[in-house]
Amino acid sequence: MVRIGFDIGGTNIKAGLLDDGMGLLAKKICAFPKEHCYHNIIKIMHSIVLEMLSENNLGEADIESVGIATAGMVDVAEGVIIKAHNLGFYDVPIKKEMGQYFPGTPVAVINDADAATLAEFTKGALRGCGNAILLTLGTGIGGGMILGGKLYNGGLSHGVELGHVTLSLDGPPCTCGNRGCIESLCSATWLANQGRPKGYGDAKAVIDAAKKGEPAAIEIFNEYIENLSSALASLTALLDPETIALGGGVSLAGGFLFDALSEKVERKSFFKYPYRIVPAHLGNDAGVIGAALAAES
Amino acid sequence: MVRIGFDIGGTNIKAGLLDDGMGLLAKKICAFPKEHCYHNIIKIMHSIVLEMLSENNLGEADIESVGIATAGMVDVAEGVIIKAHNLGFYDVPIKKEMGQYFPGTPVAVINDADAATLAEFTKGALRGCGNAILLTLGTGIGGGMILGGKLYNGGLSHGVELGHVTLSLDGPPCTCGNRGCIESLCSATWLANQGRPKGYGDAKAVIDAAKKGEPAAIEIFNEYIENLSSALASLTALLDPETIALGGGVSLAGGFLFDALSEKVERKSFFKYPYRIVPAHLGNDAGVIGAALAAES
Repeated sequence: MVRIGFDIGGTNIKAGLLDDGMGLLAKKICAFPKEHCYHNIIKIMHSIVLEMLSENNLGEADIESVGIATAGMVDVAEGVIIKAHNLGFYDVPIKKEMGQYFPGTPVAVINDADAATLAEFTKGALRGCGNAILLTLGTGIGGGMILGGKLYNGGLSHGVELGHVTLSLDGPPCTCGNRGCIESLCSATWLANQGRPKGYGDAKAVIDAAKKGEPAAIEIFNEYIENLSSALASLTALLDPETIALGGGVSLAGGFLFDALSEKVERKSFFKYPYRIVPAHLGNDAGVIGAALAAES
Repeated sequence: MVRIGFDIGGTNIKAGLLDDGMGLLAKKICAFPKEHCYHNIIKIMHSIVLEMLSENNLGEADIESVGIATAGMVDVAEGVIIKAHNLGFYDVPIKKEMGQYFPGTPVAVINDADAATLAEFTKGALRGCGNAILLTLGTGIGGGMILGGKLYNGGLSHGVELGHVTLSLDGPPCTCGNRGCIESLCSATWLANQGRPKGYGDAKAVIDAAKKGEPAAIEIFNEYIENLSSALASLTALLDPETIALGGGVSLAGGFLFDALSEKVERKSFFKYPYRIVPAHLGNDAGVIGAALAAES
Protein backbone atom coordinates (compact mmCIF):
# COMPACT_ATOMS: atom_id res chain seq x y z
CA MET A 1 0.00 0.00 0.00
CA VAL A 2 1.10 3.60 -0.64
CA ARG A 3 0.08 7.02 0.62
CA ILE A 4 -0.38 10.19 -1.40
CA GLY A 5 0.82 13.53 -0.06
CA PHE A 6 0.20 16.90 -1.70
CA ASP A 7 1.70 20.27 -0.83
CA ILE A 8 -0.14 23.14 -2.51
CA GLY A 9 1.64 26.50 -2.55
CA GLY A 10 1.24 29.67 -4.57
CA THR A 11 4.16 28.72 -6.83
CA ASN A 12 4.05 24.94 -7.08
CA ILE A 13 2.00 21.89 -6.30
CA LYS A 14 4.18 19.06 -5.03
CA ALA A 15 2.93 15.49 -4.96
CA GLY A 16 4.54 12.48 -3.35
CA LEU A 17 4.05 8.73 -3.19
CA LEU A 18 5.01 7.43 0.24
CA ASP A 19 5.62 3.98 1.67
CA ASP A 20 4.46 2.62 5.04
CA GLY A 21 7.39 4.27 6.81
CA MET A 22 6.58 7.62 5.18
CA GLY A 23 9.60 7.33 2.92
CA LEU A 24 9.20 9.12 -0.44
CA LEU A 25 8.95 6.62 -3.31
CA ALA A 26 8.29 9.22 -5.99
CA LYS A 27 7.79 12.95 -6.25
CA LYS A 28 6.34 15.30 -8.85
CA ILE A 29 6.23 19.08 -9.00
CA CYS A 30 4.06 21.18 -11.26
CA ALA A 31 3.51 24.92 -11.40
CA PHE A 32 0.38 26.01 -9.54
CA PRO A 33 -2.15 26.41 -12.37
CA LYS A 34 -3.54 29.71 -11.20
CA GLU A 35 -5.58 30.30 -14.36
CA HIS A 36 -7.84 27.34 -13.49
CA CYS A 37 -10.83 27.13 -11.15
CA TYR A 38 -10.40 24.87 -8.15
CA HIS A 39 -12.45 22.08 -9.74
CA ASN A 40 -9.91 21.82 -12.53
CA ILE A 41 -6.96 22.14 -10.17
CA ILE A 42 -8.21 19.15 -8.15
CA LYS A 43 -8.71 17.25 -11.41
CA ILE A 44 -5.11 18.04 -12.41
CA MET A 45 -3.92 16.83 -8.98
CA HIS A 46 -5.76 13.56 -9.51
CA SER A 47 -4.13 13.08 -12.91
CA ILE A 48 -0.68 13.62 -11.32
CA VAL A 49 -1.49 10.77 -8.94
CA LEU A 50 -2.47 8.50 -11.82
CA GLU A 51 0.83 9.32 -13.57
CA MET A 52 2.90 8.57 -10.47
CA LEU A 53 1.04 5.33 -9.87
CA SER A 54 1.53 4.06 -13.41
CA GLU A 55 5.22 5.05 -13.38
CA ASN A 56 5.59 2.88 -10.30
CA ASN A 57 3.48 -0.03 -11.54
CA LEU A 58 0.78 0.66 -9.02
CA GLY A 59 -2.97 1.14 -9.30
CA GLU A 60 -5.58 3.23 -7.50
CA ALA A 61 -6.44 0.23 -5.32
CA ASP A 62 -2.95 0.50 -3.79
CA ILE A 63 -3.69 3.91 -2.25
CA GLU A 64 -4.28 3.84 1.48
CA SER A 65 -4.88 7.55 2.04
CA VAL A 66 -4.58 11.00 0.48
CA GLY A 67 -3.21 13.94 2.48
CA ILE A 68 -3.29 17.52 1.28
CA ALA A 69 -1.15 20.27 2.80
CA THR A 70 -2.10 23.72 1.66
CA ALA A 71 -1.22 27.35 2.20
CA GLY A 72 -3.89 29.32 4.03
CA MET A 73 -6.48 28.72 6.73
CA VAL A 74 -7.95 25.25 6.91
CA ASP A 75 -10.96 23.76 8.66
CA VAL A 76 -9.37 20.40 9.40
CA ALA A 77 -12.56 18.77 10.69
CA GLU A 78 -14.59 19.70 7.59
CA GLY A 79 -11.69 19.42 5.15
CA VAL A 80 -12.29 22.90 3.77
CA ILE A 81 -9.71 25.51 2.72
CA ILE A 82 -11.34 28.56 4.30
CA LYS A 83 -9.04 31.22 2.89
CA ALA A 84 -5.80 31.01 0.91
CA HIS A 85 -5.08 34.38 -0.70
CA ASN A 86 -2.02 33.13 -2.63
CA LEU A 87 -4.05 30.35 -4.20
CA GLY A 88 -7.23 32.33 -4.76
CA PHE A 89 -9.07 29.66 -2.74
CA TYR A 90 -12.00 30.67 -0.55
CA ASP A 91 -14.24 28.06 1.09
CA VAL A 92 -12.98 25.26 -1.13
CA PRO A 93 -14.37 21.88 0.07
CA ILE A 94 -11.23 20.12 -1.12
CA LYS A 95 -11.64 17.00 1.02
CA LYS A 96 -15.07 16.27 -0.42
CA GLU A 97 -14.11 17.13 -4.00
CA MET A 98 -10.82 15.20 -3.94
CA GLY A 99 -12.68 12.33 -2.27
CA GLN A 100 -14.85 11.92 -5.34
CA TYR A 101 -11.75 10.89 -7.29
CA PHE A 102 -10.73 8.39 -4.60
CA PRO A 103 -13.95 6.72 -3.46
CA GLY A 104 -13.59 4.91 -0.14
CA THR A 105 -10.11 6.31 0.53
CA PRO A 106 -9.55 8.63 3.52
CA VAL A 107 -8.64 12.21 2.52
CA ALA A 108 -7.28 14.76 5.00
CA VAL A 109 -6.44 18.44 4.69
CA ILE A 110 -3.92 20.34 6.80
CA ASN A 111 -2.25 23.75 6.77
CA ASP A 112 1.20 23.52 5.14
CA ALA A 113 3.11 24.91 8.11
CA ASP A 114 1.34 22.46 10.39
CA ALA A 115 2.15 19.65 7.95
CA ALA A 116 5.85 20.56 8.02
CA THR A 117 5.76 20.66 11.83
CA LEU A 118 4.07 17.28 12.00
CA ALA A 119 6.67 15.83 9.63
CA GLU A 120 9.61 17.23 11.60
CA PHE A 121 7.97 15.93 14.79
CA THR A 122 7.38 12.44 13.41
CA LYS A 123 10.61 11.86 11.55
CA GLY A 124 12.76 14.97 11.62
CA ALA A 125 14.36 17.55 13.89
CA LEU A 126 11.57 17.59 16.50
CA ARG A 127 11.37 13.82 16.96
CA GLY A 128 10.72 12.81 20.56
CA CYS A 129 9.93 16.36 21.71
CA GLY A 130 7.01 17.10 24.00
CA ASN A 131 7.08 20.86 23.42
CA ALA A 132 8.91 22.30 20.42
CA ILE A 133 8.74 24.84 17.62
CA LEU A 134 9.39 24.82 13.87
CA LEU A 135 10.01 28.19 12.21
CA THR A 136 10.49 28.41 8.45
CA LEU A 137 12.49 31.41 7.32
CA GLY A 138 11.49 31.93 3.71
CA THR A 139 9.75 34.62 1.67
CA GLY A 140 7.41 34.76 4.63
CA ILE A 141 7.65 33.09 8.00
CA GLY A 142 5.65 30.02 8.78
CA GLY A 143 5.93 27.35 11.38
CA GLY A 144 4.08 25.40 13.94
CA MET A 145 4.24 24.08 17.47
CA ILE A 146 4.23 20.76 19.22
CA LEU A 147 2.66 21.16 22.67
CA GLY A 148 2.05 18.32 25.08
CA GLY A 149 3.38 15.86 22.49
CA LYS A 150 0.85 16.88 19.84
CA LEU A 151 0.56 19.31 16.95
CA TYR A 152 -1.07 22.48 18.31
CA ASN A 153 -3.68 23.89 15.98
CA GLY A 154 -4.75 26.83 18.16
CA GLY A 155 -7.17 26.80 21.06
CA LEU A 156 -10.04 27.68 18.72
CA SER A 157 -8.63 25.69 15.77
CA HIS A 158 -7.73 28.80 13.77
CA GLY A 159 -4.15 27.56 13.60
CA VAL A 160 -0.90 29.16 14.65
CA GLU A 161 0.81 32.14 13.01
CA LEU A 162 4.32 32.39 14.42
CA GLY A 163 5.26 34.97 11.80
CA HIS A 164 2.63 37.41 13.00
CA VAL A 165 3.78 37.91 16.54
CA THR A 166 4.76 41.58 16.93
CA LEU A 167 8.48 42.14 17.38
CA SER A 168 8.64 45.91 16.91
CA LEU A 169 5.59 48.16 17.27
CA ASP A 170 7.18 50.76 14.97
CA GLY A 171 8.62 48.22 12.54
CA PRO A 172 7.94 47.94 8.81
CA PRO A 173 4.35 47.34 7.67
CA CYS A 174 3.43 43.66 7.42
CA THR A 175 1.07 42.02 4.93
CA CYS A 176 -1.28 41.24 7.85
CA GLY A 177 -1.99 44.92 8.45
CA ASN A 178 0.12 45.34 11.60
CA ARG A 179 3.68 46.64 11.84
CA GLY A 180 6.91 44.94 12.84
CA CYS A 181 5.71 41.33 12.85
CA ILE A 182 8.40 38.66 13.12
CA GLU A 183 7.74 37.98 9.43
CA SER A 184 8.54 41.55 8.44
CA LEU A 185 11.87 41.54 10.33
CA CYS A 186 13.17 37.96 10.14
CA SER A 187 12.15 36.64 6.71
CA ALA A 188 14.41 36.12 3.71
CA THR A 189 12.49 39.04 2.23
CA TRP A 190 13.84 41.36 4.93
CA LEU A 191 17.40 40.25 4.15
CA ALA A 192 16.80 40.76 0.42
CA ASN A 193 15.24 44.20 0.98
CA GLN A 194 18.19 45.34 3.04
CA GLY A 195 20.68 43.80 0.62
CA ARG A 196 19.34 45.18 -2.64
CA PRO A 197 20.45 48.82 -2.17
CA LYS A 198 23.93 47.45 -1.35
CA GLY A 199 24.02 45.42 -4.55
CA TYR A 200 23.05 42.02 -3.18
CA GLY A 201 20.38 40.31 -5.28
CA ASP A 202 18.72 38.21 -2.61
CA ALA A 203 18.97 36.82 0.92
CA LYS A 204 21.47 34.15 -0.10
CA ALA A 205 23.74 36.75 -1.70
CA VAL A 206 23.77 38.75 1.54
CA ILE A 207 24.60 35.66 3.62
CA ASP A 208 27.29 34.44 1.20
CA ALA A 209 28.92 37.89 1.19
CA ALA A 210 28.76 38.08 4.99
CA LYS A 211 30.49 34.70 5.16
CA LYS A 212 33.24 36.12 2.92
CA GLY A 213 33.63 39.06 5.29
CA GLU A 214 32.15 41.89 3.23
CA PRO A 215 31.40 44.65 5.76
CA ALA A 216 28.11 45.85 4.19
CA ALA A 217 26.75 42.30 4.22
CA ILE A 218 28.01 41.62 7.74
CA GLU A 219 26.18 44.69 8.97
CA ILE A 220 22.90 43.46 7.46
CA PHE A 221 23.47 39.93 8.72
CA ASN A 222 24.21 41.12 12.26
CA GLU A 223 21.02 43.15 12.33
CA TYR A 224 19.16 40.08 11.09
CA ILE A 225 20.63 38.01 13.94
CA GLU A 226 19.55 40.72 16.41
CA ASN A 227 15.99 40.56 15.08
CA LEU A 228 15.77 36.79 14.88
CA SER A 229 17.40 36.19 18.27
CA SER A 230 14.90 38.58 19.89
CA ALA A 231 12.06 36.73 18.18
CA LEU A 232 13.32 33.35 19.38
CA ALA A 233 14.03 34.66 22.89
CA SER A 234 10.38 35.82 23.02
CA LEU A 235 9.25 32.34 22.08
CA THR A 236 11.43 30.84 24.82
CA ALA A 237 9.90 33.19 27.44
CA LEU A 238 6.49 31.97 26.42
CA LEU A 239 7.02 28.29 25.64
CA ASP A 240 10.43 27.28 27.02
CA PRO A 241 10.72 24.71 24.20
CA GLU A 242 12.93 21.62 24.13
CA THR A 243 13.94 22.34 20.54
CA ILE A 244 13.55 25.13 18.00
CA ALA A 245 14.02 23.87 14.43
CA LEU A 246 14.62 26.41 11.67
CA GLY A 247 13.71 25.64 8.08
CA GLY A 248 13.36 27.63 4.87
CA GLY A 249 16.01 29.16 2.65
CA VAL A 250 17.76 31.23 5.32
CA SER A 251 18.38 28.14 7.47
CA LEU A 252 20.69 26.80 4.76
CA ALA A 253 23.31 29.32 5.98
CA GLY A 254 24.37 26.58 8.41
CA GLY A 255 26.67 27.06 11.38
CA PHE A 256 27.36 30.66 10.38
CA LEU A 257 23.74 31.38 11.27
CA PHE A 258 23.13 28.86 14.05
CA ASP A 259 26.24 29.62 16.12
CA ALA A 260 25.63 33.38 16.21
CA LEU A 261 21.96 32.83 16.87
CA SER A 262 22.30 30.26 19.66
CA GLU A 263 24.66 32.46 21.63
CA LYS A 264 22.39 35.51 21.37
CA VAL A 265 19.20 33.62 22.16
CA GLU A 266 20.76 32.22 25.33
CA ARG A 267 21.82 35.72 26.38
CA LYS A 268 18.43 37.31 25.60
CA SER A 269 16.29 34.45 26.93
CA PHE A 270 14.63 35.15 30.27
CA PHE A 271 15.83 31.84 31.65
CA LYS A 272 19.42 32.31 30.34
CA TYR A 273 19.29 28.77 29.04
CA PRO A 274 21.25 27.34 26.07
CA TYR A 275 18.16 26.45 24.05
CA ARG A 276 18.60 23.81 21.37
CA ILE A 277 18.30 25.55 17.99
CA VAL A 278 18.80 23.23 15.02
CA PRO A 279 18.20 23.07 11.28
CA ALA A 280 14.98 21.39 10.16
CA HIS A 281 15.72 17.99 8.56
CA LEU A 282 13.17 17.46 5.86
CA GLY A 283 13.59 20.55 3.67
CA ASN A 284 11.12 20.89 0.83
CA ASP A 285 9.68 17.42 1.44
CA ALA A 286 8.28 18.31 4.87
CA GLY A 287 4.91 19.46 3.50
CA VAL A 288 4.30 16.34 1.41
CA ILE A 289 5.35 14.03 4.25
CA GLY A 290 3.27 15.95 6.79
CA ALA A 291 0.25 15.81 4.47
CA ALA A 292 0.55 12.02 4.28
CA LEU A 293 0.95 11.86 8.07
CA ALA A 294 -2.19 13.97 8.58
CA ALA A 295 -4.18 11.39 6.61
CA GLU A 296 -2.86 8.60 8.84
CA SER A 297 -4.65 9.47 12.01
CA MET B 1 -10.28 18.78 56.98
CA VAL B 2 -8.74 22.06 55.80
CA ARG B 3 -6.04 23.10 53.40
CA ILE B 4 -3.35 25.74 53.89
CA GLY B 5 -2.40 28.08 51.06
CA PHE B 6 0.47 30.59 51.17
CA ASP B 7 1.30 33.34 48.69
CA ILE B 8 4.79 34.77 49.26
CA GLY B 9 5.53 38.08 47.56
CA GLY B 10 8.19 40.75 48.06
CA THR B 11 5.73 42.96 49.98
CA ASN B 12 3.48 40.53 51.86
CA ILE B 13 2.99 36.94 52.80
CA LYS B 14 -0.64 35.92 52.53
CA ALA B 15 -1.95 32.78 54.22
CA GLY B 16 -5.34 31.17 53.82
CA LEU B 17 -7.33 28.35 55.35
CA LEU B 18 -9.45 26.63 52.71
CA ASP B 19 -12.33 24.17 52.83
CA ASP B 20 -12.85 21.10 50.63
CA GLY B 21 -14.33 23.23 47.85
CA MET B 22 -11.34 25.60 48.00
CA GLY B 23 -13.45 28.29 49.62
CA LEU B 24 -11.49 30.65 51.91
CA LEU B 25 -12.42 30.10 55.58
CA ALA B 26 -9.83 32.53 56.94
CA LYS B 27 -7.05 34.76 55.65
CA LYS B 28 -4.05 36.51 57.18
CA ILE B 29 -1.57 38.94 55.70
CA CYS B 30 1.79 39.90 57.17
CA ALA B 31 4.59 42.04 55.80
CA PHE B 32 7.35 39.97 54.19
CA PRO B 33 9.98 39.86 56.96
CA LYS B 34 12.94 40.62 54.72
CA GLU B 35 15.38 41.07 57.63
CA HIS B 36 15.08 37.36 58.48
CA CYS B 37 16.83 34.35 56.99
CA TYR B 38 14.61 31.86 55.22
CA HIS B 39 14.65 29.43 58.17
CA ASN B 40 13.01 32.07 60.35
CA ILE B 41 10.59 33.11 57.64
CA ILE B 42 9.33 29.54 57.35
CA LYS B 43 9.02 29.38 61.14
CA ILE B 44 6.95 32.60 61.07
CA MET B 45 4.75 31.08 58.35
CA HIS B 46 4.17 28.04 60.54
CA SER B 47 3.16 30.22 63.49
CA ILE B 48 0.63 32.05 61.28
CA VAL B 49 -0.94 28.67 60.52
CA LEU B 50 -1.16 27.82 64.23
CA GLU B 51 -2.87 31.17 64.87
CA MET B 52 -5.39 30.65 62.08
CA LEU B 53 -6.13 27.13 63.26
CA SER B 54 -6.74 28.14 66.86
CA GLU B 55 -8.92 31.11 65.81
CA ASN B 56 -11.06 28.59 63.93
CA ASN B 57 -11.12 25.91 66.62
CA LEU B 58 -9.00 23.57 64.54
CA GLY B 59 -5.81 21.64 65.21
CA GLU B 60 -2.80 20.57 63.15
CA ALA B 61 -4.40 17.17 62.65
CA ASP B 62 -7.12 18.87 60.60
CA ILE B 63 -4.67 19.95 57.90
CA GLU B 64 -4.87 17.94 54.70
CA SER B 65 -2.16 19.71 52.71
CA VAL B 66 0.03 22.82 52.55
CA GLY B 67 0.53 24.71 49.28
CA ILE B 68 3.04 27.51 48.81
CA ALA B 69 2.88 29.99 45.93
CA THR B 70 5.98 32.12 45.60
CA ALA B 71 7.48 34.79 43.42
CA GLY B 72 10.48 33.59 41.41
CA MET B 73 11.60 30.43 39.69
CA VAL B 74 10.52 27.17 41.26
CA ASP B 75 11.59 23.56 40.85
CA VAL B 76 8.14 22.07 41.37
CA ALA B 77 9.33 18.46 41.47
CA GLU B 78 11.96 19.11 44.14
CA GLY B 79 9.99 21.79 45.97
CA VAL B 80 12.85 24.28 45.78
CA ILE B 81 12.70 28.04 45.16
CA ILE B 82 15.59 28.33 42.72
CA LYS B 83 15.76 32.10 42.43
CA ALA B 84 13.48 34.83 43.75
CA HIS B 85 15.32 38.18 43.63
CA ASN B 86 12.52 40.12 45.38
CA LEU B 87 12.57 37.70 48.30
CA GLY B 88 16.33 37.24 48.46
CA PHE B 89 15.71 33.49 48.13
CA TYR B 90 18.22 31.35 46.23
CA ASP B 91 18.01 27.54 46.26
CA VAL B 92 15.66 27.46 49.22
CA PRO B 93 14.39 23.88 49.87
CA ILE B 94 11.11 25.21 51.17
CA LYS B 95 9.10 22.02 50.67
CA LYS B 96 11.47 20.01 52.83
CA GLU B 97 11.87 22.70 55.48
CA MET B 98 8.15 23.51 55.70
CA GLY B 99 7.47 19.76 55.75
CA GLN B 100 9.37 19.46 59.04
CA TYR B 101 6.69 21.59 60.68
CA PHE B 102 3.90 19.45 59.21
CA PRO B 103 5.12 15.85 59.43
CA GLY B 104 3.17 13.47 57.20
CA THR B 105 1.29 16.28 55.43
CA PRO B 106 1.84 16.84 51.70
CA VAL B 107 3.56 20.16 50.89
CA ALA B 108 3.72 21.61 47.37
CA VAL B 109 5.45 24.66 45.92
CA ILE B 110 4.39 26.57 42.81
CA ASN B 111 5.27 29.85 41.10
CA ASP B 112 2.78 32.57 42.09
CA ALA B 113 1.71 33.39 38.52
CA ASP B 114 1.15 29.69 37.86
CA ALA B 115 -0.84 29.44 41.08
CA ALA B 116 -3.10 32.31 40.02
CA THR B 117 -3.59 30.69 36.62
CA LEU B 118 -4.45 27.35 38.21
CA ALA B 119 -6.94 29.07 40.52
CA GLU B 120 -8.64 30.97 37.66
CA PHE B 121 -8.72 27.73 35.67
CA THR B 122 -10.24 25.69 38.49
CA LYS B 123 -12.77 28.13 39.88
CA GLY B 124 -12.42 31.48 38.11
CA ALA B 125 -12.40 33.17 34.72
CA LEU B 126 -10.69 30.31 32.84
CA ARG B 127 -12.98 27.54 34.10
CA GLY B 128 -13.71 24.93 31.44
CA CYS B 129 -11.07 26.23 29.01
CA GLY B 130 -8.76 23.89 27.16
CA ASN B 131 -6.36 26.63 26.04
CA ALA B 132 -6.37 30.00 27.76
CA ILE B 133 -4.20 32.78 29.18
CA LEU B 134 -4.09 34.78 32.39
CA LEU B 135 -2.19 38.09 32.30
CA THR B 136 -1.81 40.16 35.46
CA LEU B 137 -1.27 43.85 34.81
CA GLY B 138 0.40 45.13 37.94
CA THR B 139 3.74 46.68 38.86
CA GLY B 140 5.15 44.04 36.55
CA ILE B 141 3.37 41.62 34.27
CA GLY B 142 2.84 38.03 35.25
CA GLY B 143 0.55 35.34 34.09
CA GLY B 144 0.32 31.81 32.95
CA MET B 145 -1.20 29.54 30.37
CA ILE B 146 -3.57 26.60 30.27
CA LEU B 147 -2.68 24.40 27.30
CA GLY B 148 -4.39 21.12 26.49
CA GLY B 149 -6.51 21.47 29.63
CA LYS B 150 -3.51 21.70 31.95
CA LEU B 151 -1.30 24.34 33.50
CA TYR B 152 1.70 24.81 31.19
CA ASN B 153 4.97 25.12 33.07
CA GLY B 154 7.27 25.41 30.04
CA GLY B 155 8.62 22.62 27.88
CA LEU B 156 11.74 22.42 30.04
CA SER B 157 9.92 23.28 33.30
CA HIS B 158 11.51 26.73 33.56
CA GLY B 159 8.02 28.24 33.66
CA VAL B 160 6.36 30.84 31.51
CA GLU B 161 7.17 34.57 31.39
CA LEU B 162 4.41 36.29 29.45
CA GLY B 163 5.72 39.71 30.48
CA HIS B 164 9.05 39.12 28.79
CA VAL B 165 7.92 38.64 25.24
CA THR B 166 9.39 41.47 23.14
CA LEU B 167 6.82 43.96 21.88
CA SER B 168 9.12 46.71 20.64
CA LEU B 169 12.79 46.13 19.83
CA ASP B 170 13.56 49.80 20.47
CA GLY B 171 11.27 50.10 23.50
CA PRO B 172 12.25 51.12 27.03
CA PRO B 173 14.81 48.99 28.90
CA CYS B 174 13.27 46.14 30.87
CA THR B 175 14.45 44.67 34.17
CA CYS B 176 15.29 41.44 32.32
CA GLY B 177 18.04 43.14 30.29
CA ASN B 178 16.15 43.34 26.98
CA ARG B 179 14.20 46.31 25.61
CA GLY B 180 10.49 46.77 24.94
CA CYS B 181 9.17 43.68 26.70
CA ILE B 182 5.41 43.48 27.19
CA GLU B 183 6.09 44.23 30.86
CA SER B 184 7.87 47.48 30.06
CA LEU B 185 5.01 48.73 27.82
CA CYS B 186 1.82 47.29 29.33
CA SER B 187 2.32 47.31 33.12
CA ALA B 188 0.78 49.68 35.64
CA THR B 189 4.31 51.02 35.98
CA TRP B 190 4.27 52.20 32.36
CA LEU B 191 0.99 54.03 32.95
CA ALA B 192 2.38 55.62 36.11
CA ASN B 193 5.63 56.64 34.39
CA GLN B 194 3.73 58.32 31.57
CA GLY B 195 1.27 59.91 33.96
CA ARG B 196 3.68 61.40 36.47
CA PRO B 197 5.02 64.26 34.28
CA LYS B 198 1.39 65.18 33.58
CA GLY B 199 0.57 65.32 37.27
CA TYR B 200 -1.03 61.90 37.73
CA GLY B 201 0.29 60.04 40.76
CA ASP B 202 -0.18 56.47 39.60
CA ALA B 203 -1.81 54.19 37.03
CA LYS B 204 -5.23 54.45 38.69
CA ALA B 205 -5.08 58.25 38.59
CA VAL B 206 -4.38 58.15 34.84
CA ILE B 207 -7.28 55.77 34.22
CA ASP B 208 -9.71 57.71 36.44
CA ALA B 209 -8.80 60.97 34.67
CA ALA B 210 -9.18 59.33 31.26
CA LYS B 211 -12.64 58.14 32.30
CA LYS B 212 -13.51 61.75 33.21
CA GLY B 213 -12.36 62.87 29.76
CA GLU B 214 -9.12 64.69 30.59
CA PRO B 215 -7.23 64.92 27.27
CA ALA B 216 -3.73 64.33 28.67
CA ALA B 217 -4.89 61.16 30.43
CA ILE B 218 -6.87 59.98 27.42
CA GLU B 219 -3.75 60.28 25.29
CA ILE B 220 -1.76 58.10 27.70
CA PHE B 221 -4.60 55.62 28.04
CA ASN B 222 -5.02 55.31 24.26
CA GLU B 223 -1.30 54.61 23.84
CA TYR B 224 -1.59 51.99 26.59
CA ILE B 225 -4.48 50.34 24.74
CA GLU B 226 -2.37 50.35 21.54
CA ASN B 227 0.48 48.60 23.38
CA LEU B 228 -1.66 46.09 25.23
CA SER B 229 -3.84 45.26 22.23
CA SER B 230 -0.71 44.53 20.17
CA ALA B 231 0.58 42.30 22.96
CA LEU B 232 -2.68 40.38 23.16
CA ALA B 233 -2.98 40.15 19.37
CA SER B 234 0.51 38.58 19.34
CA LEU B 235 -0.64 36.01 21.88
CA THR B 236 -3.69 35.21 19.74
CA ALA B 237 -1.48 34.66 16.66
CA LEU B 238 0.52 32.18 18.66
CA LEU B 239 -2.05 30.46 20.85
CA ASP B 240 -5.52 31.33 19.50
CA PRO B 241 -6.87 31.07 23.07
CA GLU B 242 -10.47 30.46 24.10
CA THR B 243 -10.21 33.12 26.81
CA ILE B 244 -7.75 35.79 27.92
CA ALA B 245 -8.32 36.80 31.55
CA LEU B 246 -6.74 40.03 32.79
CA GLY B 247 -5.94 40.53 36.46
CA GLY B 248 -3.89 43.01 38.48
CA GLY B 249 -4.61 46.61 39.35
CA VAL B 250 -5.08 47.88 35.79
CA SER B 251 -7.84 45.32 35.13
CA LEU B 252 -10.01 47.08 37.74
CA ALA B 253 -10.61 49.81 35.13
CA GLY B 254 -13.54 47.65 33.98
CA GLY B 255 -15.50 48.10 30.77
CA PHE B 256 -13.61 51.31 29.96
CA LEU B 257 -10.53 49.12 29.45
CA PHE B 258 -12.10 45.89 28.22
CA ASP B 259 -14.35 47.42 25.55
CA ALA B 260 -11.56 49.44 23.93
CA LEU B 261 -9.20 46.51 24.19
CA SER B 262 -11.52 43.85 22.77
CA GLU B 263 -12.28 45.91 19.68
CA LYS B 264 -8.58 46.58 18.95
CA VAL B 265 -7.46 43.02 19.61
CA GLU B 266 -10.05 41.71 17.16
CA ARG B 267 -8.87 44.17 14.52
CA LYS B 268 -5.15 43.44 15.07
CA SER B 269 -5.50 39.68 15.50
CA PHE B 270 -4.35 37.66 12.51
CA PHE B 271 -7.55 35.63 12.54
CA LYS B 272 -9.79 38.76 12.91
CA TYR B 273 -11.68 36.93 15.61
CA PRO B 274 -13.58 38.50 18.53
CA TYR B 275 -11.45 36.89 21.22
CA ARG B 276 -13.01 36.62 24.68
CA ILE B 277 -11.12 39.03 26.97
CA VAL B 278 -12.48 39.13 30.52
CA PRO B 279 -11.50 40.26 34.01
CA ALA B 280 -9.90 37.66 36.26
CA HIS B 281 -12.31 36.60 39.02
CA LEU B 282 -10.27 35.83 42.09
CA GLY B 283 -8.30 39.02 42.61
CA ASN B 284 -5.73 38.93 45.40
CA ASP B 285 -6.91 35.52 46.58
CA ALA B 286 -5.85 33.74 43.40
CA GLY B 287 -2.33 32.96 44.67
CA VAL B 288 -3.48 31.44 47.96
CA ILE B 289 -6.21 29.39 46.27
CA GLY B 290 -3.82 28.22 43.52
CA ALA B 291 -1.24 27.24 46.14
CA ALA B 292 -3.81 25.06 47.89
CA LEU B 293 -4.84 23.58 44.55
CA ALA B 294 -1.22 22.76 43.70
CA ALA B 295 -1.00 20.67 46.87
CA GLU B 296 -4.14 18.76 45.89
CA SER B 297 -2.77 16.81 42.98
